Amino acid sequence: MGPGAGGGSVEARAFALGQLIARAGWVLLTGGRNSGAMDAASRGAKTVDGSIVIGVLPTDHRTRDVSDAVDIAIFTGMGEARNVINVLSSDVVVALGADTPGTASEVALALKAGKPVVLVDSTEEAIRFFVSCGPALVRVARDPTDAIAQVHDLLTALTA
Amino acid sequence: MGPGAGGGSVEARAFALGQLIARAGWVLLTGGRNSGAMDAASRGAKTVDGSIVIGVLPTDHRTRDVSDAVDIAIFTGMGEARNVINVLSSDVVVALGADTPGTASEVALALKAGKPVVLVDSTEEAIRFFVSCGPALVRVARDPTDAIAQVHDLLTALTA
Amino acid sequence: MGPGAGGGSVEARAFALGQLIARAGWVLLTGGRNSGAMDAASRGAKTVDGSIVIGVLPTDHRTRDVSDAVDIAIFTGMGEARNVINVLSSDVVVALGADTPGTASEVALALKAGKPVVLVDSTEEAIRFFVSCGPALVRVARDPTDAIAQVHDLLTALTA
Amino acid sequence: MGPGAGGGSVEARAFALGQLIARAGWVLLTGGRNSGAMDAASRGAKTVDGSIVIGVLPTDHRTRDVSDAVDIAIFTGMGEARNVINVLSSDVVVALGADTPGTASEVALALKAGKPVVLVDSTEEAIRFFVSCGPALVRVARDPTDAIAQVHDLLTALTA
Repeated sequence: MGPGAGGGSVEARAFALGQLIARAGWVLLTGGRNSGAMDAASRGAKTVDGSIVIGVLPTDHRTRDVSDAVDIAIFTGMGEARNVINVLSSDVVVALGADTPGTASEVALALKAGKPVVLVDSTEEAIRFFVSCGPALVRVARDPTDAIAQVHDLLTALTA
Repeated sequence: MGPGAGGGSVEARAFALGQLIARAGWVLLTGGRNSGAMDAASRGAKTVDGSIVIGVLPTDHRTRDVSDAVDIAIFTGMGEARNVINVLSSDVVVALGADTPGTASEVALALKAGKPVVLVDSTEEAIRFFVSCGPALVRVARDPTDAIAQVHDLLTALTA
Repeated sequence: MGPGAGGGSVEARAFALGQLIARAGWVLLTGGRNSGAMDAASRGAKTVDGSIVIGVLPTDHRTRDVSDAVDIAIFTGMGEARNVINVLSSDVVVALGADTPGTASEVALALKAGKPVVLVDSTEEAIRFFVSCGPALVRVARDPTDAIAQVHDLLTALTA
Repeated sequence: MGPGAGGGSVEARAFALGQLIARAGWVLLTGGRNSGAMDAASRGAKTVDGSIVIGVLPTDHRTRDVSDAVDIAIFTGMGEARNVINVLSSDVVVALGADTPGTASEVALALKAGKPVVLVDSTEEAIRFFVSCGPALVRVARDPTDAIAQVHDLLTALTA
């Protein structure tokens, strides 16, 4: 999860995360739109053979808004309520820059649902707040590689 | 789409439909539960190498209710509102026995969204009603093989 | 519940239904839009002192689309998924002309949720289909006055 | 909006807020459950003659979970996705103790939807985070009386 309107450094991080998620053999689920972190992560994943990218979209039909790198588009027609679905359908939520309202809502909904969250590139304010909100569920990663290592640990714990 | 509590003949038809959908190289999307037409169609699809089955579930987390034959489970936590997502995310809706309320709601929502619907094993009452509701969108199939032929025509028309 | 694009006779019926619902002291819940049966029923209700009209809208914010006769607008931003909310929030569903896809989805969703439905001005095809779908839950009314009498009986039974 | 499991001081604040909202002649919209801030605010509002309390519930039918102080219950059957509806249907969101995940998701969704938010009894971490997230939309109130004064200003600005 990450901002729909990301700048260059956010997109580079998102691209790396998508690529590492696909290399780990995991399915990538994003918000599906053709912009920001969603699109960059999806494109990163599609550089890997056999990758699967699911996009859960706020809109109700296919338009140019859908990232070309999404393999399977789920159209909800439910606007931001699709954030709930993103979170419930994920085993672990990786949030890039959780200081925008949309991503912040996904982190908060993940904590409400009891899902582990890994924060990457968050501001100090976001880290302090979300750690206070869900101390047992929130982890902070230095960079995409560290995030993936932490996801690996969390998935191992979940399936143990 | 089809009844969650199907008897033997519904399930045999659903199994055949799932298998034919996968053989055609299409992604199968179902309601994802471990019962009735959803489960049978998903199991049919998984007899085919390389098949992809998406299950869009009414529940908010993985339980025994999820069909083992679902590859990717989307948890909505939204009950019957997930029927809207099923329909919006499908290019063509194949409805098996549209005379149960849940499946009937999916056919009606598909017509509202302008999606083509192929009815298989419907009652006379269901056929007459849905044809009156959406004459340009509803087709009636004799059996799974005929349904797949009609889906093929519809997809060709959609991408033309 | 009724068609968003109703002609004159549908709207006259809807207006009468709204007025009779308000006179009975019940809260009227509609789809909230400024057109067809929704708007006419809401306007009918507002001719009665002390009436309350709730509109559950598919959109996410107030526009000209909201009927002026709605007292309290619930904005869902969820498109047709709001039909589920309409039905779950009603004690009895009165459907006017259930042969349009949107209204048909509401009747089907009501039957799925176990809610009683009173059909007014339905076609023969709609009556036959929905009676076959939910024989214990569907009633057919001759006109708005008969519909209100049947709702009264149903509410008495529900609270008995 | 506020925590479903509130202690005594949160409930006293919520009760006061509900009462002041009703005295101002505004409709109170809450999450509708029979616990925490939702219930206390609703009970506060019902001490005022002519008050109207709307509860938008996560569940799909009436149970003991619904606050007795709710006048009109909207059943969504959509779990936390109803948080989106709460926010979209409010002109101003007053959040009590926004440091729990559910309330935090509502504040974030409100900011995403461009709605003004007044924080009462928030932690320092929550205030810093949400001000960084939506500087133009977030206000901090000292207590319920101050919160109502700020809502009054915001509503005056909205209708100007």
